[in-house]
This record gives sequence, structure tokens and C-alpha cells, in this order.
Amino acid sequence: MSYMQVIGKKAKEASGLISVLGQEVKNKALEEVAQALIEDTKGILDGNKRDLENAKASGMKASLLDRMLLNEERIGAMAEGLRDIAKLKDPIGEFERVEVRPNGLRIGKKKVALGVVGMIYESRPNVTSDAFGLCFKTGNVAILRGSKDIIYSNQAIVAAIKKGLERASVSTDAVLLVEDLSYDTIDEMMSLREYIDVLIPRGGAGLIKRVTENSSVPVIETGTGNCHLYIDEYADEEKAVAIVVNAKTQRLGVCNACESLVVHKTLLETILPKVCQKLEEKGVEIRGDESVKKAWENTVSATEKDWGEEYLDSVISIKTVDSIEDAIYHINRYNTGHSEGIITEHYNNADLFQERIDAAAVYVNASTRFTDGFEFGYGAEIGISTQKLHVRGPMGLDALTTTKYVIFGNGQIRD
Amino acid sequence: MSYMQVIGKKAKEASGLISVLGQEVKNKALEEVAQALIEDTKGILDGNKRDLENAKASGMKASLLDRMLLNEERIGAMAEGLRDIAKLKDPIGEFERVEVRPNGLRIGKKKVALGVVGMIYESRPNVTSDAFGLCFKTGNVAILRGSKDIIYSNQAIVAAIKKGLERASVSTDAVLLVEDLSYDTIDEMMSLREYIDVLIPRGGAGLIKRVTENSSVPVIETGTGNCHLYIDEYADEEKAVAIVVNAKTQRLGVCNACESLVVHKTLLETILPKVCQKLEEKGVEIRGDESVKKAWENTVSATEKDWGEEYLDSVISIKTVDSIEDAIYHINRYNTGHSEGIITEHYNNADLFQERIDAAAVYVNASTRFTDGFEFGYGAEIGISTQKLHVRGPMGLDALTTTKYVIFGNGQIRD
Repeated sequence: MSYMQVIGKKAKEASGLISVLGQEVKNKALEEVAQALIEDTKGILDGNKRDLENAKASGMKASLLDRMLLNEERIGAMAEGLRDIAKLKDPIGEFERVEVRPNGLRIGKKKVALGVVGMIYESRPNVTSDAFGLCFKTGNVAILRGSKDIIYSNQAIVAAIKKGLERASVSTDAVLLVEDLSYDTIDEMMSLREYIDVLIPRGGAGLIKRVTENSSVPVIETGTGNCHLYIDEYADEEKAVAIVVNAKTQRLGVCNACESLVVHKTLLETILPKVCQKLEEKGVEIRGDESVKKAWENTVSATEKDWGEEYLDSVISIKTVDSIEDAIYHINRYNTGHSEGIITEHYNNADLFQERIDAAAVYVNASTRFTDGFEFGYGAEIGISTQKLHVRGPMGLDALTTTKYVIFGNGQIRD
Repeated sequence: MSYMQVIGKKAKEASGLISVLGQEVKNKALEEVAQALIEDTKGILDGNKRDLENAKASGMKASLLDRMLLNEERIGAMAEGLRDIAKLKDPIGEFERVEVRPNGLRIGKKKVALGVVGMIYESRPNVTSDAFGLCFKTGNVAILRGSKDIIYSNQAIVAAIKKGLERASVSTDAVLLVEDLSYDTIDEMMSLREYIDVLIPRGGAGLIKRVTENSSVPVIETGTGNCHLYIDEYADEEKAVAIVVNAKTQRLGVCNACESLVVHKTLLETILPKVCQKLEEKGVEIRGDESVKKAWENTVSATEKDWGEEYLDSVISIKTVDSIEDAIYHINRYNTGHSEGIITEHYNNADLFQERIDAAAVYVNASTRFTDGFEFGYGAEIGISTQKLHVRGPMGLDALTTTKYVIFGNGQIRD
């Protein structure tokens, strides 16, 4: 058995125990783990320091170093995150419905844990406690495979988690860290169908593409967002300016930020310049087609590549269209299935846009920045799914569950 | 562009039209297609005759020939099947819920079509009209890739479907048959993520394994069933005999038939011989462990292989256990995640079994043969999913849908 197979088998065995834990036991354990994280702050910071030193020595960029950095406050936030998860309603064991059939069979559809969830992520150590917490709350065993860059941070965090689990008399195999990074454990995880029920990659586009295209274990894709806003012919100027500026600039490096603006041709000399003015004041570079260039001087010529680009930066592309149909066509061609919005006061156009746009979240007169598990009221977020199977859009705890039919009979046989 | 890419692209383009068709248009079209199938009976039978001749010439078994065979009655049943689908409630456009957030955003979760569904199946021509009907009703475009053995039947059936669609003024690209079988179109379908939203393989274990293990397009696995019944220490004798005999013999070659019996050791001289007697009368071969052999003379020694075998035949394996815990352990080790049942009058044992068994459907005191879309009240069946993501158990129309969040705002921006 390979190193990963041993981990997989251990996870599958633990899953039988973890999936049937009661709510009180799970919530108590989350509290113990939160406490252990605080207690182990020094050890975690030591591990993190080691990771940071290695990363600096290898010349990592400052923004990435910051993403890796832990301090007392951030560890406190990780613990608080687990306490918040403990407070959420536990979906496990709930019945979605019970139907009674003419022959008297009662058929219940019950929410149950997925089993073993494999998380593959990059260099954010907070994902380690967060992913554990969400998986554990939903009765799943988590196999965590973070980036090599944060291995010492992760070892210290997982040690604290296991300490907390032990205090709560819960199997410490509820979380398993992939520590042997000497060979390609990601490749192996992608083929462990026997032991892993679902893989969730969290990170850059390259990682996600690699996993979705190559995994034979089912994947929940947490995708990139090339999000559009369309300013319709019948848009309200004030709303248009406020929403575009918010969606583009409120936070740059996130998947629900607006990356591309589509504007009706009748607005080139009215609303568009006002939007561009505000964007420019916020330091946003504008890349547009010929019509946009005529309407706004400081426009860089957009290339074909710009329409499909998720900048995650102070740049926006702007496309002019002749009609709402053209807008829908353009957006469906270039969007990544994340969040798209229309700004309009026109009833039918709003309806048409929401009907025709193929994406996880389709907005009328609101910022795309709302696509988020907390903003949607789920109280947690595992990520934002851009796939169509299983779960689409912001993922709360339910995304980590499946269902099982439980059928209550009294001797029924089939004719 | 390859042959399959052209089909994929055409399907994706048609999907924009098909996904937004209204209920009346879809139901009218299903009726037209049903009628066209009846009208084209002669042409379909001609195609089928040609397939049968080729199959006979290549030495195909009689049971497989029967599976391929069409006649007037079977074509009538295909048409009737489409009319039944027309009568079902259309899930598309329904809201699962609408939530109002504190900032006034109304967030609706709406059922929408998946988009393009690829069906890969073997030599059952009725799957062709059936799969089209289910996909079309749910606003999906169907790419149908049936076995080479039934290509002429399928060409005639799809021609009739397109005739019906045309009469209803619906794009004939709602169904696309893969006709070029000169190279491996299955391999190519498995990688067409750009155009195909989900693949559903229907057929033998080999086909399903190939697709689930190699596809980068998301798959809905319709799996095999190594279904168990456990006769608990506290079983009622009459129920036990009736349920086991029904689950094993009512229909042999189906995935929800019982393939393995697990029996509590205290029943070896009481209930077990009665069950074996009845099974033997029905011509079922019994393969058991040493205890079963002692209890019932005509028992063949079971090997390790028998515990994991889906016979689809007049054979059953029987395993003796010391406790319900052992029964659960054994079943979770060998089951294929389909349907498992316990026969007991003991409240806690029933509960424990339903809680611990990891399968799509877990029965108390009823035959496993009920795992079926029609028996579950869905009015249709696309197959029975043995996977955990997206849908588990019998799949009705909902399995062919996804959701889209539609968000109604009036200028909301994020702080």
C-alpha cells in the first residue's frame, strides 16, 4: 500500500464513526479544537515562521507571503471560525421529505455525510482549520493536502485539532494531513475512488483545471469568475454607477468582482462616461472596443483575450452592444458560470436576462459581490461552485452532504 | 473540428433554445414525436431488422437479440412512454425557495436545465426515445451514443423524433445521434467539457467503470447492485421468507434484485431452512459459508468472490453472522451502494441498520425490488444512481436539472 492509500483507508474506516456522531458531540469537539488552537498558538507560530523563512529564501512575492502569514489575531480568528461553525444548524439526519406510497411504504430522504472529503489547496493555513470544521460538522472525514509552502504551519494546526478531538473523545482520524510531499500525492488522490468520495480543489485556476480535468474521484469545482455587468438601455444612472464601481473596486482579487462591463450603445455618451469617470478615480484601467474608445479618451484597446480575462486587478474591459440579445450572447460566450448582472428598470429585460444567462448567480440591480455563502445566509462557505452537478453557487454545509433513502416497510413485496 | 466536436458545438448552441421552451411547447412536441414514432413504425422495423440480421450473423446470444428486438407493440410502448413523460409535472422554472436578506436582496433558487446531456448506452433501442423524452422534458439537449449493434434502429427512431420536433416547430437539434462509429466517439465524449454538461452511461459494469474512471466531463453513475438482505435475530419468519424470495426471484436480471443474504446465527435451524426451501423450489442455487452448509444440505461452498458478486442470475450467496454489527460490517464491505435491507421486529436494530448502512436505499421489512423511479413515485426513471454527488438512488426528472440563483435587487452594493 502506498502512503496515500494508507491515508485513504484510514479515512474510510474513520468515516463510519464520524458520520454517525451526534450534534452535541460534534459541537463540543469543535469547541475543544478551538481552545486547543489558542493554547497551541506558540507552536503554530513557530511552524509558520519556518514556512515563511523557507518561502522568503525561495523568493516568494510579498502578497503571497502575507497570505501565508499567521499571527495571534489570525489564529484567534481561526478558533472563532470553528465556534461559529459549531453554532450552525447541523443538517445531518434531517429528512428532506417522507413520502407514503399506495402500498404503505414510507420513503424518507435523509441528509447524510458524503464520507471522505479530500481538500487540495494552496498556501492559506486558515483553510486547514476551516475545511476541517466544515467537514467535521457535516460528519465527513477530511483529508487535507495543502501546499508544501505551509507544511510546518499545517502540521502544527492539525496537531492542535487532533488534541482537541482527543479531549472530546472523538477519533483523531477525523482529520488526516498529507505530510509526505516527496511525490505527487495530488495525482494519487485523484484516483483513490475506493476511499475518497469527493475532492474539492481550492486555489488558482491552474490547480482547479488540473483536478477537474484529471480526477476520477468526483470533484466539486470552485471556479474562477469572469463576472459581467450589463448596463441596459433602461438602466437607472445612479444605480449603474454605484453598482459597477462597487462590483469592480470594493475588493479586487476575488472571484465575484466584476471583470467586464457590457453597455448598451445608447448610453455611450450618457451613463458610460460617468461610470468611467468614477472607475478612473479609483485607479481602474479601462480596456474597451472602438465605440468605448470614442466615448472615453483614456481607453486602452481591448483584444479578444480581454473578453475572457479574469483580471483580479484594477482593470476592467468594456464591450458595447446593440441590444440586450447581443449582451446575453456576449456574456454567455465569455462568462465562467459565476455571477452576472443586469442594471435595468425594464421588467421584461430583467426577466429575459435572468432567464437566458447561464451562470450560478444572475443579478438584477445589485452588485455581483454578493455571491458568497455568508451574504446568501448560509453562515459558512466552503467555496463557490461553478459546476452544475450537485451544487451550484455559494456552498454552505448542505454542499458537504448527500442523501440516503430510508424505507420503512411492514412486509411489502413487489408484484 | 472533429466529428464529435461538431456535434458538441451544435448541441451547446441548441441548448440555449431548448432550455427556455415553455411547458406547453414541450408537451406538444412530445405528443408529435410519439405520433411520428407510430407513423414511422415500418421504417423503424426495417432498420431494426437490419441490425438484427447483422447481430445474428455475428453470433449474438438469444437474450441479447431479444433486448434489441423491436415490434409494433414495443414501438407503441415507446410512444406511450413519451406521452407519459408529457403528463409529468415540469420541474423547470420552479423555485426551490426564495430568501429575503436583511439588505432587501431577494435570493431565489430556481430549477433549470443542465444543458447538454450525453447518454452512452448499449443495445436497447427503447433507451433512444426514452432518453430523448426525459432530457427534452427537462429542457436539455440529448447527445445519444448507442451501441453500434442498434445503429440502424437508432437512425430510424431519431429521424422520427426529428420529424415530430419539426412539426412542433422546435429545433431538431434537441436530439443528436452519434452516427459515426468508425472511431472511438466515447473517448471523445468523455473529454468534451466545453460542450457536454453531464454524461450518463447506461449498461453493463464494464461500460460504467470505463466512463466513471476516465471521463473529465461530470458523470452520473448508474451502477450495479450487489444488494443484501439481512435476516435479523428478531425477524418475523413469514416476512423474512416472503421478502427474500421476492427480492431474489421476482426478476433476476435487475440491479435491485437481492444477490446476497446475511443471516443471524440463531436462525440457522429455524428461518434459514424455510427460506432455502422456497428458494430451491424457485430453482435458486445456494452458495454459503460453513454454517449455512451444515444447516442446508444443497449448499455450494461460497468463495470470497461470491460475497462481492452481482449474479443477475438464479444464484444467491448466504453469509452467517454473530451479531447485527457483524452484518453491518459485512454489508458495508461488499455492497455496491445500491439497495440493502433488514428484516426485523426490533426497533433499535432497524434504526441502527438504517443509520449505519452506506447505500442509496436502506429498507426495513420490504423487498429491495422497490428501488425504482416509478415505485418511488417519480413517474419516470433515468436510472438508479449509486454515486453520492448530485443525485443518489432512483432518478426522476429532477436529476436532469440544476439550479441557478436569481437575485432581485434595487441598487444593493456591498460594504
